[in-house]
Amino acid sequence: MSLQPVLINGDWKKAKDSTGTFNMTNPATKSRLPESYPVSTKEEVLETLEAGKKAAGELRSTSPDKIAEFLELFANKIEDRAEELVNLTNLETALPIEPRLRSGELPRTTNQLRQAAEAARDRSWCMAVIDTKSNIHSMFGALGGPVVVMGPNNFPFAFNSAAGGDFAAAIAAGNPVIAKANTSHCGTTKIFAEAAFEAVKESGLPPATLQLIYRTPPDVGLMLVSHPLVGATGFTGGRSSGLKLKEAADKAGKPIYLEMSSVNPVFVLPGALKERLQNIATELYGSCSLGAGQFCTNPGLVIIKKDENGDAFINSLGKIFEGNKPGTLLSAAGPKNIAEAIKILTKAGAEIVVGGKEADEAGYAFSNTLLRVSGTNFLKNPNNLQTEAFGTVSLIIVADSIEQMTEVASRLEGNLTGSLYTSTKGDDDLYYSKIESVLRLKVGRLLNDKMPTGVAVVPSMNHGGPFPATGHPGFTAVGIPRSMLRFAALHCYDNVRHHRLPEELQDKNPTGKMWRFIDGQWTQSDVER
Amino acid sequence: MSLQPVLINGDWKKAKDSTGTFNMTNPATKSRLPESYPVSTKEEVLETLEAGKKAAGELRSTSPDKIAEFLELFANKIEDRAEELVNLTNLETALPIEPRLRSGELPRTTNQLRQAAEAARDRSWCMAVIDTKSNIHSMFGALGGPVVVMGPNNFPFAFNSAAGGDFAAAIAAGNPVIAKANTSHCGTTKIFAEAAFEAVKESGLPPATLQLIYRTPPDVGLMLVSHPLVGATGFTGGRSSGLKLKEAADKAGKPIYLEMSSVNPVFVLPGALKERLQNIATELYGSCSLGAGQFCTNPGLVIIKKDENGDAFINSLGKIFEGNKPGTLLSAAGPKNIAEAIKILTKAGAEIVVGGKEADEAGYAFSNTLLRVSGTNFLKNPNNLQTEAFGTVSLIIVADSIEQMTEVASRLEGNLTGSLYTSTKGDDDLYYSKIESVLRLKVGRLLNDKMPTGVAVVPSMNHGGPFPATGHPGFTAVGIPRSMLRFAALHCYDNVRHHRLPEELQDKNPTGKMWRFIDGQWTQSDVER
Repeated sequence: MSLQPVLINGDWKKAKDSTGTFNMTNPATKSRLPESYPVSTKEEVLETLEAGKKAAGELRSTSPDKIAEFLELFANKIEDRAEELVNLTNLETALPIEPRLRSGELPRTTNQLRQAAEAARDRSWCMAVIDTKSNIHSMFGALGGPVVVMGPNNFPFAFNSAAGGDFAAAIAAGNPVIAKANTSHCGTTKIFAEAAFEAVKESGLPPATLQLIYRTPPDVGLMLVSHPLVGATGFTGGRSSGLKLKEAADKAGKPIYLEMSSVNPVFVLPGALKERLQNIATELYGSCSLGAGQFCTNPGLVIIKKDENGDAFINSLGKIFEGNKPGTLLSAAGPKNIAEAIKILTKAGAEIVVGGKEADEAGYAFSNTLLRVSGTNFLKNPNNLQTEAFGTVSLIIVADSIEQMTEVASRLEGNLTGSLYTSTKGDDDLYYSKIESVLRLKVGRLLNDKMPTGVAVVPSMNHGGPFPATGHPGFTAVGIPRSMLRFAALHCYDNVRHHRLPEELQDKNPTGKMWRFIDGQWTQSDVER
Repeated sequence: MSLQPVLINGDWKKAKDSTGTFNMTNPATKSRLPESYPVSTKEEVLETLEAGKKAAGELRSTSPDKIAEFLELFANKIEDRAEELVNLTNLETALPIEPRLRSGELPRTTNQLRQAAEAARDRSWCMAVIDTKSNIHSMFGALGGPVVVMGPNNFPFAFNSAAGGDFAAAIAAGNPVIAKANTSHCGTTKIFAEAAFEAVKESGLPPATLQLIYRTPPDVGLMLVSHPLVGATGFTGGRSSGLKLKEAADKAGKPIYLEMSSVNPVFVLPGALKERLQNIATELYGSCSLGAGQFCTNPGLVIIKKDENGDAFINSLGKIFEGNKPGTLLSAAGPKNIAEAIKILTKAGAEIVVGGKEADEAGYAFSNTLLRVSGTNFLKNPNNLQTEAFGTVSLIIVADSIEQMTEVASRLEGNLTGSLYTSTKGDDDLYYSKIESVLRLKVGRLLNDKMPTGVAVVPSMNHGGPFPATGHPGFTAVGIPRSMLRFAALHCYDNVRHHRLPEELQDKNPTGKMWRFIDGQWTQSDVER
């Protein structure tokens, strides 16, 4: 039916000489949705880059207060259109309106935008350092080029290209955004972009502060992230696309922050199983099945020690996995990819405990699947046995001993998270130390007696981790203000006359409460002379 | 003569089945130095990686105080061997003993080590963030694998693989170092490694805290920086080797921090020339000729506006360049590379004002060279006209107008520094703003009325900048504590029981004065409950 417009340089317009169009499917009914979306040409992408570059320059001289106002106004406008959003997103993704979309993800998204606004206004995020003796000053500042945001399919609000965490962080740090919609929820992204663009206009920000395209041919995507005009890229998605984009951006020396794949190992120690096996099984299933298992922090690997409690745990888990109806997956690719991943896992030595088959439902679904493998067999083929299955699928590794559990930890790839469940009575303390010292280095966030699927938006969060979970172990995609540093460059001013320094580096504290590191001390004071 | 030993896992030993040996040359006499150094095999490099990995684990549970003691002890031992060092280094590099080596670079090096010790002891570098409500904590922590340091030829002390800034930063952050000596000053590096290893033993650190090799076949170097056991790499050197190492490390997802090349543009505005043409010419030559022009912050590009003062400036500069004797270059490659760079520059349209020839000296030398090109011609071939000539060589761009100067700024590659010389009376204020807004985004450090060659070791320093000056615009190689963050990963602890947290994240401030970000405030206090 109707071909949807792109948003380029302040105009909602028909895509220019589109190289094709596509339609989405309602995953709950497998029926085609009426709206068509264009595939943008190289020419059109270049147009967004040129406009983004211009906006980047203008935003650098825009007051952070004005940027903060924009973010807050945008959050309000999202709330105004909440019903429209949750209904359309439910249609596009099959994610339940309640509690997920309306009560969970939407408030989280507006909260992120408001936190980002506060961080922009506060200015402490830029880590101003002032050395009065040498008259050298430095701070993090906007990149001077647009940030490309490519959001994932599984968080249509909180990680949306035009409203999610990367968007909020990039804008709050003073950069315009070129949003490439995830192609599984283009309508959702378009509503966000409409609301954002209204807020852009009302706030008086440059028109190209946000631009929106939906899809590009693969080579144009590679051109986009590696183009001289681009500032940086934030990508959340699958490993294979992520690595291709990374290679292109790396070669051009353009920063790219990727969140790619993670099996989020959960080590359940013997004392914990002895103490509360049933509770942990329930908790684990809850975490595994959140969003039909389509969470980047979904626990796909569970490591236990072989003993009778271990057997009972698997038994109990098997019953829960089998007894629950699988959730609807985000797209036709969902069950296909899960089946492929399970094929790799079983070929590598894993046995299916329950599930393993596409589910016979009206929507896209795959039966909840539990697999098992011995520690010894895992160690024989650790790479394939870490294949991510993006659904309610977990592989239990049954190790012979704590030593073998530690050895398993040492063979893990980089992950976003790793969890350790332990006895509350201290029974597992020695084991904990042993495994933690290895696991710590493999993950961004280490959890204790907690499942990994909740990612709190707090300053101490690290939603990141060593490659291949992400592209660099020092950055987080969630947690304001730290996530903003991805979209900034370190700017030093040496002997620059006082009136020529950015406000943040002048003697007078520009907000009266901005934190700055002056002569080796963090302070909210002015520079004292 | 004698084949020098490598330092692997706590043993000074003969290189195993070396794939070859090499000797250095005294650049002042072009005569071969007697010591031979081995080219390490893949097997030997793997041995350093295994030992480094083990040491990394041990260092993670070593008290920062002990690491600080090591760094201070090492600094003392360097001072004990100062005479031996400056004499040998002078022989290997032809850098003058006074003032450069004994009074300049050596104190700078020990100062860096002591600053790093202080930072390790203080612990504020790790940016601990504590959110009491959510019970989520995070901090930067050591990588858990050895850091490979490859130092440059031009700073045999301050950037030495076994004693310089990268070494100090990596160790202070809790990582062992695999030093690959720069092959133009292997003897210097061996003395540093001897002193460091003595300090390692006396401090009781793991024997593989520092290991030393001198050279590898190219493919083994690529293997080293991309190996699963490696933590990260710090490289300072030429762009062509840097890019090869970057590609290998990027592909493996291993952090690599590179400082590659930079022409360090200096914009001299009309008011400044009108006011103090002669002073600026003298200052510029001083900066250009430091270390015989072999500084990464050497001003290789000077941009002025065409007018009579501009002509007088070139005239004056030409006389100074011509009237001074060129310094001795670091190696036979020096004059060869300069000649090649000048060939590229002249072919691209630059004209030689003075110099342009290899100098007839006992040592390796090239005549001080000044070139010029019009702004219009620069804009026709901006890439080749940014070719770095590593010596006392500067290209003056004579622009038609301030607009054209700004246009030149917009065509610059990423650089470490960019300078703006301005009238002290405000005549250039409007021009400054215009050019600064463009130049700011092209450089790591922006200078005003100051030449770029002094790199102060202060917390606000940024010795970094956009690609291709470095590999990432958010990191600095100089300036403690910030430079340490290159060799650390962000570690988050979610719901981890209090006694299992690292000291830095427990309620009690571990030093009584460590800065931590607790519930949104930087503080040196304990967590209040």
